[in-house]
Amino acid sequence: MAHLPHLFLPGPWDEKGIRLNPEHESHLSKVLRRSPGSAVSYTDGAGRLGTGILEPGLVVRGREEIVERPFPTLCIAVAPPRSRDRVRFIVEKLAELGVDELCWISARFGQGDPPGLPKARAWAIAALEQSRGAWLMEVSGPMALDELTGMLVVTDLTGSGAIPPGELRYTVVVGPEGGFDEAEVPLDAVRIRLANRVLRTETAAIVGASAVLKELDR
Amino acid sequence: MAHLPHLFLPGPWDEKGIRLNPEHESHLSKVLRRSPGSAVSYTDGAGRLGTGILEPGLVVRGREEIVERPFPTLCIAVAPPRSRDRVRFIVEKLAELGVDELCWISARFGQGDPPGLPKARAWAIAALEQSRGAWLMEVSGPMALDELTGMLVVTDLTGSGAIPPGELRYTVVVGPEGGFDEAEVPLDAVRIRLANRVLRTETAAIVGASAVLKELDR
Repeated sequence: MAHLPHLFLPGPWDEKGIRLNPEHESHLSKVLRRSPGSAVSYTDGAGRLGTGILEPGLVVRGREEIVERPFPTLCIAVAPPRSRDRVRFIVEKLAELGVDELCWISARFGQGDPPGLPKARAWAIAALEQSRGAWLMEVSGPMALDELTGMLVVTDLTGSGAIPPGELRYTVVVGPEGGFDEAEVPLDAVRIRLANRVLRTETAAIVGASAVLKELDR
Repeated sequence: MAHLPHLFLPGPWDEKGIRLNPEHESHLSKVLRRSPGSAVSYTDGAGRLGTGILEPGLVVRGREEIVERPFPTLCIAVAPPRSRDRVRFIVEKLAELGVDELCWISARFGQGDPPGLPKARAWAIAALEQSRGAWLMEVSGPMALDELTGMLVVTDLTGSGAIPPGELRYTVVVGPEGGFDEAEVPLDAVRIRLANRVLRTETAAIVGASAVLKELDR
């Protein structure tokens, strides 16, 4: 099962089979060397997950299941770093870990720009396929900190708070390398410390996501 | 303090001042735009940490402290991925998080090669400076799984075990994308699961390191 190619095929799906686009066909035949008759798994990125058979130009649907939307919702809000590699790493790793939403934030001391949304979405799709997930991470922003919703959890070397349980939505906020201007941070935000070291933005995003996913038992 | 340049200057140090090499001098003047008289912090990567004053060609030593070697020792043993970018991220992120040792492993289904040790060490030094640490991560290997020492903790989607407390040394083992040949894994290894998704090697290394550091209260 671990070696089945896993495809993101957005819905709605035809009863008879799901059409493949030319990129999928080329990837399946040239990179993965799969030919008609091979088994593949697929998802619509919105909770539907199935296993089917590859045919020329389509996937014949087989056994399917519904994976419930993970709860509570986890959004990671990040001030984009300057380097394109690091921006890409953030999108890819958060999508791989199963974070629900990535929201770019604009911060006073921010130094980078968010990637275009189509680019970010393409990275998130590749990571969804790689990690065999059923829910595609959404990417949005940039927005200001006070536009974020849910319980705000700011990652900070001075933090010591625990994550309050029982919320419907958590937004973990990772600032730029230069930190936040204190006036930017909403007063009701909880502060947590991720490590004893000064972490780069992309490291804090990944470590923050995995720590909070674990804390929320997701 | 957060904005002081932090320099790795291997010991032993002269009483009067620590000589700077030309790369440090050029980085300080051209990239960081620091001139003689500026304050810097410095470490020997072996627990000595100080704050001093930049002079032409050297750092005049100021207040210093000893940071004890973190305990228990954490080694992350990784089968190198194929991509150079991902290999680099592993070295950089583990050094940034404060892992003590990175050991490359050779696994039957491994697809990549470890970087040269001087290269890996240069990345680890940059991450030490970036994260303001006092202990430089050591890099070694490649070696086989049965040459690893300490309590072996294998990261695995099927894992469910907890990390046994009370050991002097923990080695977290991250396999190649294709997994381990079961015969390679020592029988006494503990298995833990890091996420509900299939993680790439570099993601498992980072998430595993941060989870175990937290578990060990480091």
